[in-house]
Amino acid sequence: MKALVYKAVNSVALQDRPVPTLSYPTDAIIKMTKTTICGTDLHIRKGDVTTCQPGRILGHEGVGIVQSAGSTVERFKEGDRVLISCISSCATCEYCRKGMYSHCTSGGWVLGNTIDGTQAEYVRIPHADSSLYAIPSGADEASLVMLSDIFPTGLECGVLNGKVQPGGTAVIVGAGPIGLAAIITAQMYSPSKIIAIDMDPKRLEVAKQLGATETIDSSKENAVARVKAITDGKGCDSVIEAVGIPATFLLCQELLAPGGTLANVGVHGTKVDLHLQNLWDRNISITTRLVDTVTTPMLLKLVNSGKLQPSQLITHRFKFSEMEKAYETFGKAAEHGALKVVIDLD
Amino acid sequence: MKALVYKAVNSVALQDRPVPTLSYPTDAIIKMTKTTICGTDLHIRKGDVTTCQPGRILGHEGVGIVQSAGSTVERFKEGDRVLISCISSCATCEYCRKGMYSHCTSGGWVLGNTIDGTQAEYVRIPHADSSLYAIPSGADEASLVMLSDIFPTGLECGVLNGKVQPGGTAVIVGAGPIGLAAIITAQMYSPSKIIAIDMDPKRLEVAKQLGATETIDSSKENAVARVKAITDGKGCDSVIEAVGIPATFLLCQELLAPGGTLANVGVHGTKVDLHLQNLWDRNISITTRLVDTVTTPMLLKLVNSGKLQPSQLITHRFKFSEMEKAYETFGKAAEHGALKVVIDLD
Amino acid sequence: MKALVYKAVNSVALQDRPVPTLSYPTDAIIKMTKTTICGTDLHIRKGDVTTCQPGRILGHEGVGIVQSAGSTVERFKEGDRVLISCISSCATCEYCRKGMYSHCTSGGWVLGNTIDGTQAEYVRIPHADSSLYAIPSGADEASLVMLSDIFPTGLECGVLNGKVQPGGTAVIVGAGPIGLAAIITAQMYSPSKIIAIDMDPKRLEVAKQLGATETIDSSKENAVARVKAITDGKGCDSVIEAVGIPATFLLCQELLAPGGTLANVGVHGTKVDLHLQNLWDRNISITTRLVDTVTTPMLLKLVNSGKLQPSQLITHRFKFSEMEKAYETFGKAAEHGALKVVIDLD
Amino acid sequence: MKALVYKAVNSVALQDRPVPTLSYPTDAIIKMTKTTICGTDLHIRKGDVTTCQPGRILGHEGVGIVQSAGSTVERFKEGDRVLISCISSCATCEYCRKGMYSHCTSGGWVLGNTIDGTQAEYVRIPHADSSLYAIPSGADEASLVMLSDIFPTGLECGVLNGKVQPGGTAVIVGAGPIGLAAIITAQMYSPSKIIAIDMDPKRLEVAKQLGATETIDSSKENAVARVKAITDGKGCDSVIEAVGIPATFLLCQELLAPGGTLANVGVHGTKVDLHLQNLWDRNISITTRLVDTVTTPMLLKLVNSGKLQPSQLITHRFKFSEMEKAYETFGKAAEHGALKVVIDLD
Repeated sequence: MKALVYKAVNSVALQDRPVPTLSYPTDAIIKMTKTTICGTDLHIRKGDVTTCQPGRILGHEGVGIVQSAGSTVERFKEGDRVLISCISSCATCEYCRKGMYSHCTSGGWVLGNTIDGTQAEYVRIPHADSSLYAIPSGADEASLVMLSDIFPTGLECGVLNGKVQPGGTAVIVGAGPIGLAAIITAQMYSPSKIIAIDMDPKRLEVAKQLGATETIDSSKENAVARVKAITDGKGCDSVIEAVGIPATFLLCQELLAPGGTLANVGVHGTKVDLHLQNLWDRNISITTRLVDTVTTPMLLKLVNSGKLQPSQLITHRFKFSEMEKAYETFGKAAEHGALKVVIDLD
Repeated sequence: MKALVYKAVNSVALQDRPVPTLSYPTDAIIKMTKTTICGTDLHIRKGDVTTCQPGRILGHEGVGIVQSAGSTVERFKEGDRVLISCISSCATCEYCRKGMYSHCTSGGWVLGNTIDGTQAEYVRIPHADSSLYAIPSGADEASLVMLSDIFPTGLECGVLNGKVQPGGTAVIVGAGPIGLAAIITAQMYSPSKIIAIDMDPKRLEVAKQLGATETIDSSKENAVARVKAITDGKGCDSVIEAVGIPATFLLCQELLAPGGTLANVGVHGTKVDLHLQNLWDRNISITTRLVDTVTTPMLLKLVNSGKLQPSQLITHRFKFSEMEKAYETFGKAAEHGALKVVIDLD
Repeated sequence: MKALVYKAVNSVALQDRPVPTLSYPTDAIIKMTKTTICGTDLHIRKGDVTTCQPGRILGHEGVGIVQSAGSTVERFKEGDRVLISCISSCATCEYCRKGMYSHCTSGGWVLGNTIDGTQAEYVRIPHADSSLYAIPSGADEASLVMLSDIFPTGLECGVLNGKVQPGGTAVIVGAGPIGLAAIITAQMYSPSKIIAIDMDPKRLEVAKQLGATETIDSSKENAVARVKAITDGKGCDSVIEAVGIPATFLLCQELLAPGGTLANVGVHGTKVDLHLQNLWDRNISITTRLVDTVTTPMLLKLVNSGKLQPSQLITHRFKFSEMEKAYETFGKAAEHGALKVVIDLD
Repeated sequence: MKALVYKAVNSVALQDRPVPTLSYPTDAIIKMTKTTICGTDLHIRKGDVTTCQPGRILGHEGVGIVQSAGSTVERFKEGDRVLISCISSCATCEYCRKGMYSHCTSGGWVLGNTIDGTQAEYVRIPHADSSLYAIPSGADEASLVMLSDIFPTGLECGVLNGKVQPGGTAVIVGAGPIGLAAIITAQMYSPSKIIAIDMDPKRLEVAKQLGATETIDSSKENAVARVKAITDGKGCDSVIEAVGIPATFLLCQELLAPGGTLANVGVHGTKVDLHLQNLWDRNISITTRLVDTVTTPMLLKLVNSGKLQPSQLITHRFKFSEMEKAYETFGKAAEHGALKVVIDLD
């Protein structure tokens, strides 16, 4: 089969690989129909993710059709259409029982990281019963690819961790794909304000279309002053960090209302300053999380009932044979106005 | 009347002052029967608390008898015995309605800070209906003085913010009075482990007597390694910082289990390092809080029913005429083995 | 002044009454600009509410302008435009501190019940600081009248007590004004299904316009079978009873999914059968509540930001001089297609 | 092997049966070391449980040693000592993912009901990875037998569903084994009052020894009046029904404080009256639940750390050869002063 392989730092390519086979009776082999590229894949390509070694087939998102299921897989059988979670979950370990699938002792984020992933014609999915989700026939599968990672991430790490609530005020720092997914899913909880902050006017324009009530270009105006002006001088109840650098984390601290929550979504490579001398008596929370995908069943229901349209984030589509070009496009997202790309294998 | 006054940096003294009178119909004047000294009072004496200016009568804790009540005070009348909350609350502002009394727009921590306090024969209490609590006759009033500040602080900022839960593991960094109040109140939620860390063997001995299941002298052994050993390598679900310096906040980050909560109780005067590069994917929370005293009614019920014995923290008692000596003793707490001192005015 | 008085069973009339004056320094006198009639007022007229005696000025809803404020009222002054809560709250009693304003020991539902109410040119509001809410200038005041009672009731007693959640399934039994308010506010929490059940096709049509995803005329089809068909045989996660008779409460029990919640909103005059032999092992909850109006600040924010349009429920408007006609119209709501009527005094 | 078999209504006996074998790769065969008899087993013997047919080996509680484990069982291997949950859980179905193991679509309460149970020398446990719990070596295994059913039931259906909280008031109606388990586990949450109501003075004496702060013999005094007297006229925040008949459910309704919760634990065979005309505006909840055993890991930690002593409930011990005598004794529990019996197979 064809598969997109991380060859070396700054190098990925389509290669021929053997079709995977069942290793455990709890595995399933999925024939991929759609996949996508994540910002994390770009980090791997740059050599930033030490757990992922050259030779690995990349990708942890997508939908497909069950090609074969292990002997103890109960919920899926050959021919079923499924959504693949970016997080593999055994369902029975201490962490899975607490809903922390990302810390599963025999799973977590392994796909396209420590085992071969979904940017291939076929992929082996461990713990199939608890890592796949049935897709209704006739569903918009490109849209559902967004439920593998980016929607649960925006929702769990941003909106839920940030305690976005009816009537509350929320600010999202960073209007990239994850920030936009947070903006969309924040609306499930009816805040009165959703403020988007970025330095790219095009992204801010998209943020507005997707539901931001105010946008702030922090390269042109004082974001703290503007947020305070919008919120009667208080700052925001929910502050979502969706960039992952010290400067934005610092900004987020300044945007917090008393009693507010700073939900970190960004991947940080270095320590940051925490201004406890200002925050120790402000009744605030700071939260971190790797997506657990515990909200996937709920998101599926909302997509199926038409309440959510994840396809709003899809800007480009490619054939699987164009995978390398897809990486080029997504790798220069700003230049191409790319948010999420969908790769069609069917 | 006599009152303990903050005269200048490093100087407090008993002075003659006029008896306070009702300023607002919602005030009450309390004849003090017992008070105490807080670590914060020592900070004021050192000049660390800029909101508190020389000339101020100190003190924000105590019990007493209502001498007179303003015309609209409904819950209290002359002769009632009352507990004074360290936090004055109007009950009706946006923050009070959310249970954030510490951020009350016309109250908060004002006693012995921006208005005269409780280390005096009489004190004026604003918003009396929602800042005083009725005491049953015959109660151990020295014990109840601990409910003005230290017990709600240990409970709200430490135990509740730290989400101490049945079967969980908790570690308290700092076994001073506040840390010990956290150790005592943690037991209300039945954790399986309560680990105390300090560098003073005497305080650790007290911690053990008050319910710590393990104690660690971090000057003599590697606290991180020991906590990991006690917790199957995971770290603790609830990590309570009760010191307030960068080194202990750093230690706390290393003691956190995946999914755990770091509850900051310490007063920090400087920024700290937050190692987000390690924590961003660990599903953790960090919380801060100034005590709101929303738990005072509940604590009163538990003291009245004999489930809590706050007097465990009282090591010294003084007459009010010995107030300056009391400051000397509490100011050298380690030397005198002092935890909480009680000052008797009756 | 003119006021609508409950004269005797089945008799209400506009009468001349003295303008009320401040009785307590915590009172405010409000010059009414808009009011409405509640289903409860009709119950009073029928003689069903024994706490409300003849001679009482009716009404517990409305907006107006502060005419005078007692000496200790801090949040409002002459000329302020305000929303009146149907529940008067002292903010400081044990129940108010828990958010159970309806059980306030010196308030609760008193307006138009045990003290004179809002269907008058002026009304005295006790505990003004915590029973009135500031209205922004330029607001749609007719719309805000819906926040005095019906919207908080639908939200608190129905949606919140019923734990309506993203992706969940909700059914509302009874599509009268309260049921419709529940249907509207349920959407703040993004359920995947909102099913309305009634026997009046016109009300079901309105329910659909206001957001019901499915409607069931229980006089024409088997409601239980249909709900099961819609919900994969499970029943609903949230079942809201908005009628108040044994038959509908019984129906609600049959509509509950395992793990679901039956939120009773209806006023019941008699005991009902609870089929515990079927429900004891189904992990369900049944809840009751008198509206506390704790959500009023949040609802105000959502109306002000344009996320909620309570005016959707207003079908008729009258001048205050037409008050008796308004009662006639609202008293025959089905005949007139009336949902909520608004009475203009300005 | 020997096994206790439900032969016919009112007849159980030890019989010879073949040793069970693995049916699915997710099964484990357990060599029993200790088991017990549940009140439910007596109901089966009486013919009250229609799902359990004659010929069935009874029992759903116990500890033992893994004899063999299916090929996909990951957490347990031959020789491991394990606690058996009364609820079998697949961990992956919709209900298991919500923590409603009792509603597992391929499990739930099956042991000693629809498949052969634990009152035998060997038992087959389905879904072994998520239905067994590792026991530390050297543990008091008789004590741990109480964690199979009665402790999680008292805790989950009574204490947690009843929202027992620090400082709150709790009343348990029925001081049989389940009620006593609720009394013991209620103390994990530090209520200020735990009131036990029964008509058997011996059981009330035990309740007092196990932590009840007050006891009421409802055959001799007015339980409602006494509870009101103890609770300042309010009734209790948490009312736990642990009998299962209409009279006690009615009593419970009268014991509820405004804002309180009635947690039903009893198994009801008939409908009951619900006095909604009194309760509709009291902000109360009524809850039901079949034990899910989601708290078993937490309870194990508390027993292992010495915070809970479930052996307090054990009054009698028998050898497995005396199983029929054990049924006789437990069947006449009042006469023999029996709470829980432990059967030793090792």
